[in-house]
Amino acid sequence: MEYKKIAFDVMGSDNGLIPAVDAAIKLLGEQKDLKIIFVGNETELNKALSSKKYNPDQVEIVNTTEVIEMTDGIMDIRRKKNSSMVKALELVNEGKADGITTGGATAPFIAGCHFIIKKLDGIERPGFMPVIPTLVKGKITLLLDVGANLECDPEDLVNFAIMATAYSKAVNGVKEPKVALLNIGEEKSKGLELHKQTYKLLEENKDINFVGNIESRYLANGIVDIIVTDGYTGNIALKAAEGMGKALLSEIKSAITKTLFRKLAALRLKRAFKEVRAKFDYKNHAGAILLGANGIAFKSHGSSDKIAFYATLKMTYNAIKNDVVNKVKKALAE
Amino acid sequence: MEYKKIAFDVMGSDNGLIPAVDAAIKLLGEQKDLKIIFVGNETELNKALSSKKYNPDQVEIVNTTEVIEMTDGIMDIRRKKNSSMVKALELVNEGKADGITTGGATAPFIAGCHFIIKKLDGIERPGFMPVIPTLVKGKITLLLDVGANLECDPEDLVNFAIMATAYSKAVNGVKEPKVALLNIGEEKSKGLELHKQTYKLLEENKDINFVGNIESRYLANGIVDIIVTDGYTGNIALKAAEGMGKALLSEIKSAITKTLFRKLAALRLKRAFKEVRAKFDYKNHAGAILLGANGIAFKSHGSSDKIAFYATLKMTYNAIKNDVVNKVKKALAE
Repeated sequence: MEYKKIAFDVMGSDNGLIPAVDAAIKLLGEQKDLKIIFVGNETELNKALSSKKYNPDQVEIVNTTEVIEMTDGIMDIRRKKNSSMVKALELVNEGKADGITTGGATAPFIAGCHFIIKKLDGIERPGFMPVIPTLVKGKITLLLDVGANLECDPEDLVNFAIMATAYSKAVNGVKEPKVALLNIGEEKSKGLELHKQTYKLLEENKDINFVGNIESRYLANGIVDIIVTDGYTGNIALKAAEGMGKALLSEIKSAITKTLFRKLAALRLKRAFKEVRAKFDYKNHAGAILLGANGIAFKSHGSSDKIAFYATLKMTYNAIKNDVVNKVKKALAE
Repeated sequence: MEYKKIAFDVMGSDNGLIPAVDAAIKLLGEQKDLKIIFVGNETELNKALSSKKYNPDQVEIVNTTEVIEMTDGIMDIRRKKNSSMVKALELVNEGKADGITTGGATAPFIAGCHFIIKKLDGIERPGFMPVIPTLVKGKITLLLDVGANLECDPEDLVNFAIMATAYSKAVNGVKEPKVALLNIGEEKSKGLELHKQTYKLLEENKDINFVGNIESRYLANGIVDIIVTDGYTGNIALKAAEGMGKALLSEIKSAITKTLFRKLAALRLKRAFKEVRAKFDYKNHAGAILLGANGIAFKSHGSSDKIAFYATLKMTYNAIKNDVVNKVKKALAE
């Protein structure tokens, strides 16, 4: 069988490799054409896998002796040649895997992608692209860049739009993805020089369905399919939204459990809150792809649990299955 | 009696002058040393005031014939010389009022402050400073700039810190206000050149209680008293947080009212939700001051209702009472 192969760096995330292995076994059971190449400490991996049921043809282990730690910087990618992250990236570069998933440190991972799997022709700055769950049922919004590049020029943002459009069509099945530019107001004249120039270029580009500026207050409103921005602004906007969501939910939780009377009423709304949480839960959309890398490279939250790793592995699998890199390449060449 | 005098521009906001007048009457009843100079259409004002009870010594009306509309640009401040906004600003400049409150358009208002009441010595870019309600009971965080200046240099950010520190001490009674720099990470090395340089200057400044970088995810966590940033980033962060809060609340509302069973349970939690809303409600903190202007200048949301106008008028009154401008001047001169 021709397997879709994910090199899975199971080391270096906050919660150890157990949730990573659990997530992988779950997805392997669902996708019979998937093979996972676990990259990490062989002894630990064998131990974690020993109690699991899976088709052995779908599993490979590559032993490594070093780990890129959360505190490591980008130069540690050069130094730790036998780390799981570096090995997993090399598997992709050598064509032995079709994509990588990691829960390891972000900055070294981005640097590792640059050094090892390289960038697509014409791309100076790949963009880190997470998925934003939205108010509209079944609709997600792609946001990039959220921090791979603190500063971007208008050409980068146009490339983000082209690449994300190809991604959205291929993976999310959106016919004509709506693209917006993150800005402080909707009018064409708003923002810094970067935004005014980018607006003009996006408007002129016939391959992009550009719908104008969008304010950060509408990040999660599901108005558009893709929001482009520089990495500094994207990072600020994403974290502000996530942080407020978290703060509000924690406040509600403490308010509705303050008295026994409230607790009893809240019990009856358990399912309702579960629905809201499910919609806004970043765990179900924990993966972010480095779009513009010459290979499928997904990062899961450093604090990923089984659900988060499962979501990211599934995104990696879908990206492989839908041949995202080639479609992005083709879109860039047009 | 020596009145504290607010020039209140009642025209140009989204909801007409009725909520503005209602809010003013409420505050006049509470603060016997307050005088409100209503600036706007005299006929409409007399009509709105006719049914109200108030001490006539506390009320003045200045008739104007023009209005700065929401769609007006900064140059309309020069053109509409008989607008309520311009007249109210002139009252402050001439010393006939101690401060201004408006619900009118933001950009013309900031321009009007620059042109008419001018800037404090040593301040190149006044900062627009709203109040962020936080998770910590009774604690608010001041955030500036949120859009008066899209680009700032490190000196501007240091001035924001100095001015907001003086404000926080004078108005909020905080002894040593904690100041943080908005950034994409906590480490000193994070961010753009602007942040690295600002970090250094804030660290060196002995008059500022600088506690380091803060990520936008902690905007509403009440960790610090003051967050400084450039106007572009502040605007993006504030709107992202507000937008997510609104999206989440609307989602919860629809989830807990989906069935009759849920509606009945939700009724029992009415007070709990009210508590949460009160904590996060921007209406109760609707005012933003233009800090660095040579006069007390408050802007209320364009869509202000009575509660929002009341909150902003009260903030204006407190700023006057606590002699904010002179205290800020003194802090800048030190």
